[in-house]
Amino acid sequence: MEPRLCPWLSLLQPLLPTCAADLIINPATTFKEKPDPSGLVFGTVFTDNMLTVEWSVASGWEKPHIKPLENLSLHPGSSSLHYAVELFEGMKAYRGVDGKIRLFRPTLNMDRMLRSALRATLPRFDKEELLECIRKLVEVEQEWVPHSTSASLYIRPTLIGTEPSLGVKKPTRALLYVILSPVGPYFASGSFNPISLWADPKYVRAWKGGTGDCKLGGNYGSSIYAQREAMELGCQQVLWLYGEDHQITEVGTMNLFLYWKNEDGEELATPPLDGIILPGVTRQSILELAHEWGEFKVSERYITMSDLTTALEENRVKEMFGAGTACVVCPISKILYQGKVREVFVYERETLRC
Amino acid sequence: MEPRLCPWLSLLQPLLPTCAADLIINPATTFKEKPDPSGLVFGTVFTDNMLTVEWSVASGWEKPHIKPLENLSLHPGSSSLHYAVELFEGMKAYRGVDGKIRLFRPTLNMDRMLRSALRATLPRFDKEELLECIRKLVEVEQEWVPHSTSASLYIRPTLIGTEPSLGVKKPTRALLYVILSPVGPYFASGSFNPISLWADPKYVRAWKGGTGDCKLGGNYGSSIYAQREAMELGCQQVLWLYGEDHQITEVGTMNLFLYWKNEDGEELATPPLDGIILPGVTRQSILELAHEWGEFKVSERYITMSDLTTALEENRVKEMFGAGTACVVCPISKILYQGKVREVFVYERETLRC
Repeated sequence: MEPRLCPWLSLLQPLLPTCAADLIINPATTFKEKPDPSGLVFGTVFTDNMLTVEWSVASGWEKPHIKPLENLSLHPGSSSLHYAVELFEGMKAYRGVDGKIRLFRPTLNMDRMLRSALRATLPRFDKEELLECIRKLVEVEQEWVPHSTSASLYIRPTLIGTEPSLGVKKPTRALLYVILSPVGPYFASGSFNPISLWADPKYVRAWKGGTGDCKLGGNYGSSIYAQREAMELGCQQVLWLYGEDHQITEVGTMNLFLYWKNEDGEELATPPLDGIILPGVTRQSILELAHEWGEFKVSERYITMSDLTTALEENRVKEMFGAGTACVVCPISKILYQGKVREVFVYERETLRC
Repeated sequence: MEPRLCPWLSLLQPLLPTCAADLIINPATTFKEKPDPSGLVFGTVFTDNMLTVEWSVASGWEKPHIKPLENLSLHPGSSSLHYAVELFEGMKAYRGVDGKIRLFRPTLNMDRMLRSALRATLPRFDKEELLECIRKLVEVEQEWVPHSTSASLYIRPTLIGTEPSLGVKKPTRALLYVILSPVGPYFASGSFNPISLWADPKYVRAWKGGTGDCKLGGNYGSSIYAQREAMELGCQQVLWLYGEDHQITEVGTMNLFLYWKNEDGEELATPPLDGIILPGVTRQSILELAHEWGEFKVSERYITMSDLTTALEENRVKEMFGAGTACVVCPISKILYQGKVREVFVYERETLRC
């Protein structure tokens, strides 16, 4: 396919790049076997093609390419490899029971991706144009969107600094790419299977004045050590605490929700976006839906471990769950805190399906 | 060169890898022109060769290679590119006036690199064996060590996760590599040219329970945004503050020293290693030397902006400087804090050379 010229591209570089009309599509001609959707391990299988767009301060954004998935060729001095000048997004394409493929609120991911890019001093891009390129990639790979109600196609846009020098500075070169992976439930225990948490102030995920509200690589790698300690203690994920009063903030790589009973009645609560919380798309969607229902109070508010343990002791906690694109909604069944395991009520699958 | 077999390698993998006796050396046969040491911009020129060692959980460490510098071929799902599962070190080889090449306290870098690896859930390695491989690399590249008293060969060991999957977890694959770059002064203003600082609590470099005491990529990329804001305000670097009382912690990517006069007399002070401070090799060396001299009190202690501004107003600050491998020692001349520029006394070059 010969790309059409995008009339405004040359005028607006480097601020409004990645013109979808310029997209060059050279897809794979050999195809991997598509896996059984029921046996997928999150993020281990990739589709046949990827999208790449190169950027340099000198030339702005190059033309986007859809091409066979291949290794990246990176200078060993690249700023993504030394200084984590990098960010990512996580989105999903679902195949509906009507056979149609739909992306879940992708403009929210594009908004957040641009915010992350600014924080990481990576180049701006045009959100609509990038989304159009991603749509085209999913279209090329449509047979990879699982024919299943429990699996989907995970979309991973990534933007990395490829500055080939060792000064700690805004990169003069970058690479935006998108890879796709058919996925089942995030946790090996399966979707809606409840998880246990380790709540301890020893490790802190994010802090005021840091980058916890952006989807930068550095927020994630640093969490693995704590996650391993949680597993050694028999828990599956970390319940991240913050501050002297042990505020509960996030769980693993998910936002956190608490559905409980207060003096005022029932409330669905999640920590507010005060700079240390990732503004999750699933988080926002749950808040919007719950507001729409109008059946109970919906709050963005601070919750401390003391608030939570008191409510657990008084049987006022009705449900607690993590929420994120990868896992969607994940019930919490147990919390290990200050040496004591506290049980959290979990609705049975049967209850959920009624 | 045919590598000798290392007798214990197979027994101890993956805990004691990178056997230097196994080193395979296939150096470059074409050579880049060596630059004029007086015009070097930090970390932009690389030597002809690099060291690489691959690791996987299945096979442990492979044999180390010295080979021509080349781009890395990385899976686009690599955990270093998504989750900043990565760390680095910075060391220098100097050519003495006697013509001999010396590394500056490299065992301290190897100690810190191993600590960073554990924190990043990257594989352990044998520090002595890795240092021996680095020595060999410097030997191969010895003509790249500048014949100059103001330039040196910067050594950048790097360890990255190459796990080709999107789960946030300990990587099952990794790559250790070392690249070399002849360098002059870190700052364009030149060595011993004083720098100005922006002190503001808006951005926080590191926090308790985080990774500020390890040399992980995520600590650095997140600092560039603040650094740019400092430059927009007419300053060269960020003076990183911490906590409600605005403790001074680090400066740019350097440790911080304050030489001042207190009630007890003269004191050289630097913030203590309480988890948010990088344990710098230059920092440690300055502390050890100053202790040895015994001419003034040497302290690892907290210093707040209030302590500092009071001392500046009372003319009790004799000198303030950043310290790190890249810049060595860098005097501070000005601090912009709460809208006010405060001057810091700087010894003239002539004074320093007396």
